[in-house]
Amino acid sequence: MKILILGGDGYLGWPTAMYLSQQGHDVTVVDSMVKRFWEAELGVEPLAPIRPLPVRVKRWKEKSGRDIEVRIGDIAENHRFVYTVFEDVRPDAIIHYAEQPSAPYSMLDREYCVATQRNNVIGTLNVMFAMKRSCPDAHLIKLGTMGEYGTPDIDIEEGWLDIEHNGRQERVLFPKRPGSFYHLSKVHDSNNLEFACRIWDMRVTDLNQGVVYGIDTDETRLHDDLMTSFHYDAVFGTVINRFVAQAIHGLPLTVYGKGGQTRGFLNIRDTLRCVELAALNPAAAGEFRVFNQFTEQFSVSELAERVKSAAVACGYGGTEITQIDNPRIELEEHYYNAKHSALEDLGLTPNLLTDDVIGQMIEVAERHRERIDTDIIAPTVKWNQR
Amino acid sequence: MKILILGGDGYLGWPTAMYLSQQGHDVTVVDSMVKRFWEAELGVEPLAPIRPLPVRVKRWKEKSGRDIEVRIGDIAENHRFVYTVFEDVRPDAIIHYAEQPSAPYSMLDREYCVATQRNNVIGTLNVMFAMKRSCPDAHLIKLGTMGEYGTPDIDIEEGWLDIEHNGRQERVLFPKRPGSFYHLSKVHDSNNLEFACRIWDMRVTDLNQGVVYGIDTDETRLHDDLMTSFHYDAVFGTVINRFVAQAIHGLPLTVYGKGGQTRGFLNIRDTLRCVELAALNPAAAGEFRVFNQFTEQFSVSELAERVKSAAVACGYGGTEITQIDNPRIELEEHYYNAKHSALEDLGLTPNLLTDDVIGQMIEVAERHRERIDTDIIAPTVKWNQR
Repeated sequence: MKILILGGDGYLGWPTAMYLSQQGHDVTVVDSMVKRFWEAELGVEPLAPIRPLPVRVKRWKEKSGRDIEVRIGDIAENHRFVYTVFEDVRPDAIIHYAEQPSAPYSMLDREYCVATQRNNVIGTLNVMFAMKRSCPDAHLIKLGTMGEYGTPDIDIEEGWLDIEHNGRQERVLFPKRPGSFYHLSKVHDSNNLEFACRIWDMRVTDLNQGVVYGIDTDETRLHDDLMTSFHYDAVFGTVINRFVAQAIHGLPLTVYGKGGQTRGFLNIRDTLRCVELAALNPAAAGEFRVFNQFTEQFSVSELAERVKSAAVACGYGGTEITQIDNPRIELEEHYYNAKHSALEDLGLTPNLLTDDVIGQMIEVAERHRERIDTDIIAPTVKWNQR
Repeated sequence: MKILILGGDGYLGWPTAMYLSQQGHDVTVVDSMVKRFWEAELGVEPLAPIRPLPVRVKRWKEKSGRDIEVRIGDIAENHRFVYTVFEDVRPDAIIHYAEQPSAPYSMLDREYCVATQRNNVIGTLNVMFAMKRSCPDAHLIKLGTMGEYGTPDIDIEEGWLDIEHNGRQERVLFPKRPGSFYHLSKVHDSNNLEFACRIWDMRVTDLNQGVVYGIDTDETRLHDDLMTSFHYDAVFGTVINRFVAQAIHGLPLTVYGKGGQTRGFLNIRDTLRCVELAALNPAAAGEFRVFNQFTEQFSVSELAERVKSAAVACGYGGTEITQIDNPRIELEEHYYNAKHSALEDLGLTPNLLTDDVIGQMIEVAERHRERIDTDIIAPTVKWNQR
């Protein structure tokens, strides 16, 4: 299968590229490198040094014997580039990770909010028009987030909801209540894509992904140059990754507010398998298909307890948990029951969050202990600053 | 009340400015003039010549003795301009019409789609941040459209919906299914605004307006220089306006497809009264309030029959109705029952679509008969072109 991965330099894009290359697919990666610019702008860097993409691709060729093609360009700023790549590659499937991925980044101020929505919404529009032009029958696998739904007081279904109102029935997009301008950009994308399925018969799978944790995959372990861009900072890092960085530095694990915030989570290895399953089982022509892509749900307090317990087992006996003011505006105690059976029905076998898994994360993080900047873990972006 | 009208040069913005000025409010209008550029780009023009905004404002002063302040600048492209205007004016209410208003325009191709979503979404984001900065307690009255809802098989409520799912209840934003990239831009706006109400305690009234018809108001009638920018072309014109232009040129009234498409409609005079009522009764702090702003619902075929009958009464005995291929992708026969009681509860007395009202439109259009370009009435933009 010819697969185009947009955002192929990123935390998920790069491991996905290697994994699908390893499965025998013909992989092209696209990236603008703007994420590396955003990191430098904020003064943060990934846990391990990340070599330039062409170097990683050469190393991958050395280790696997397989080629990954690289195209550098910005899908939001340069639609001519997008058109050229789609016309050259004519992919069967497109995996679209090429978005600004951080909620706090989008909440920094007007400029970052606008940059996020412009980048994400226009990038996706450009991809839609390029598909319509060069490969209208291809399958777009678009990364969304479970955060688009918010925390409603009802069960969260996978994208669609059957409702009855005044004695009549309708199937509607599941009503969303996103929690940041970043999450909103993903909602805008989903709405644009659902429309494209209706008018152009596009095939789209929208993956509402939970919070991803994990540092390595079978492929990243082959060589230090193949590591992925793991973040533990307050802007680009996700919660478990952040707790791991705190634990090995003897810092308290910082829970925002009461810690009852419950979310769906998954292992980075399951992300790769999920996008593969979506690619192998494409949406029908005209179908806007939504999968909730996570394997377990936890509250932030539960996660802190789990990381603490794994950390203690790894020799960090003094690990503590502390509550800090919540920089976000979100419910800290709420109902949460999100469905996530579609991907398991397609064959996903979850890698659950065990003490072992956390232990392995701690081990890898330890190897880069000296590079961890403990000043960038505390949140600095507040949702309601005026 | 200090009122800022964004898009004050437009079909609705200009009559709103005069009307609210006449009611004694302190009115400032903002416009970038980009709509005049879009018209020139497509080779279309309004029914009557529209003088430059400063000329209209001078004429208004002459006729009414009242000042309207003008600020020229682009709210989407120049946030510094937006910040300056909001800081200078510190309005009590902002009426936001400053968006690309045409569905066909947004469907022309990628460039127009992106221009529409960028202009509308970023313009509104800039307004939100300017309010947060200079007048966080002001009330934003934002023009949306009934087209955001699409044509669901259930009753359409005013913005919010109480649902029960698996035995639990939630109040959600009414699920939408917009029919063009333009309509989608308004949905994106609504979602961004609802979030701003939650995190910044903003006051927002989202007016999901029906299709507006009508050429004149009490104020536009005072002088030819005060006329508003009435469009009858396939891109910027709305359906009744188009039928009127066809009737007086002895052309058949063109119904797209079966003509069972049913929508909400209102007289331009009611638009002015609705925004006034919203301004006089502001949303609460943190409230995202939605009104469905229309007074009657009709199918396109019913409208054609009504315009035909009024035209015959005005001496256009040969008026015919014809069906043409529908350039849009939309249901042509469907259930439609949209609620619209909130504005009437606040005091709106509808100006309904009578033969007299259509007759008056025909009369005004006749005065400009020679300027009507009958080549720009047939639709040229198809929704599913590849």
